[in-house]
Amino acid sequence: MKTLKVIKIGGNIIDNEAALTTFIKDFSTLKGPKILVHGGGKLATKLAEQMNIPVQMNEGRRITDADTLDIITMIYAGKINKNIVAQLQAHSCNAIGFSGADGNTIISEKRPIKTIDYGFVGDVKKVNTDTLEVLLKNNITPVFCAITHDEKGQLLNTNADTIASEIAIAFASTYNTELYYCFEKNGVLQDVDNADSVIEHIDTGTYKTLIENGIIYEGMLPKLNNCFHAINQNVQKVCIGTSDMLFNTKNKHTTITQ
Amino acid sequence: MKTLKVIKIGGNIIDNEAALTTFIKDFSTLKGPKILVHGGGKLATKLAEQMNIPVQMNEGRRITDADTLDIITMIYAGKINKNIVAQLQAHSCNAIGFSGADGNTIISEKRPIKTIDYGFVGDVKKVNTDTLEVLLKNNITPVFCAITHDEKGQLLNTNADTIASEIAIAFASTYNTELYYCFEKNGVLQDVDNADSVIEHIDTGTYKTLIENGIIYEGMLPKLNNCFHAINQNVQKVCIGTSDMLFNTKNKHTTITQ
Repeated sequence: MKTLKVIKIGGNIIDNEAALTTFIKDFSTLKGPKILVHGGGKLATKLAEQMNIPVQMNEGRRITDADTLDIITMIYAGKINKNIVAQLQAHSCNAIGFSGADGNTIISEKRPIKTIDYGFVGDVKKVNTDTLEVLLKNNITPVFCAITHDEKGQLLNTNADTIASEIAIAFASTYNTELYYCFEKNGVLQDVDNADSVIEHIDTGTYKTLIENGIIYEGMLPKLNNCFHAINQNVQKVCIGTSDMLFNTKNKHTTITQ
Repeated sequence: MKTLKVIKIGGNIIDNEAALTTFIKDFSTLKGPKILVHGGGKLATKLAEQMNIPVQMNEGRRITDADTLDIITMIYAGKINKNIVAQLQAHSCNAIGFSGADGNTIISEKRPIKTIDYGFVGDVKKVNTDTLEVLLKNNITPVFCAITHDEKGQLLNTNADTIASEIAIAFASTYNTELYYCFEKNGVLQDVDNADSVIEHIDTGTYKTLIENGIIYEGMLPKLNNCFHAINQNVQKVCIGTSDMLFNTKNKHTTITQ
């Protein structure tokens, strides 16, 4: 089986023009089929402030009312996505930008209201790989922003980490699929104050211990849950670290195994 | 040869939610390969006002500085394009949104500065049909916003009418290509105050006479120049009128011939 790399980048790259330029140049050199998933960074919050639209958060999650969904669609699918695609083209990496509505690639359902109404937030139901496979076979790189749709005409704000893991899972039967979460740290750290204290391997057993010992908490929990979800659904390789892990084999990072 | 319809819609549909909903529903029923091109309507101007970014015009053309390009990218490629695609999916029309950067489909060059610096405005140099053909053969409808790129990483604001005619021209050798410009009138009018005075056929000869007699002027001139450019480059059929011309064969409209 051919190897497919699914790579997610977040705010530390998106929000830093120099970092994004370097990443795109390096990403373009990666051989073989690949899919890029990007988060939104701080631009959406900045635009909301400029437009006097209040940013509502609950436990670190954005509440997406209609105005906020518009902003997210403009920033994620418009400004960020198209600029990434244009820069990839400049490095001869033929890319097409996607939301989950494009090609009906990612169908989600609006999160049901329990205690909190998150608004236009979608939980992924299904990834359709057919069109993406045609593109990958034509040496085209899909670039996903963190927006999906419900097949009824409604766009939905969706977690970018989840989009990356669900895409990887959907391809796991046809490709040797590798999922890379790039963020600002070298991986999961044993000591949050020591950037070099990377835990190089985590499996289901050590994961539990790390949570119990308070080494993994807050924002790392959903990220690692996405990792284990992917690895348990036959994604062959899941890694967390800085984007250097993609381009420098000696770079320390965290690898997740079952 | 199969028939390909290239359909351009503008502000009268984009800016009117009910009109857009109806159009999308009808458009979804059109059989055979089709490409939709949409303008930006008034939303970009509205957002620029909200953000206190001055709108600079010269002879009806927007001057596109860096902030304005951002706004256009957010509105055209983000908000409008993704909402159209999501609504098409709701009507089982499998669509993918495109800027010219996506799939390297439309390459333009920044307009040279003569008397006026139009800023980040692009004149189309080339349309690459390969990827679009793959999609059309897979029963997928490309939906273009009016943004292109220069292959060096720069997005460029580009006239939507021109994008539509250049796409139609690029496909004229592989498809029986029909180009439809949908706008608020029934076609080119003999008497601008009489909506029924549609000139049903215009050829190169009558076009000259109509200009000389002041029947065609201002905004209609570049639109008709695009029409004649297309018909002279082997596009098989070029029509101007309301979008009803697509769905009701009895609807009066203007047809352009050589």
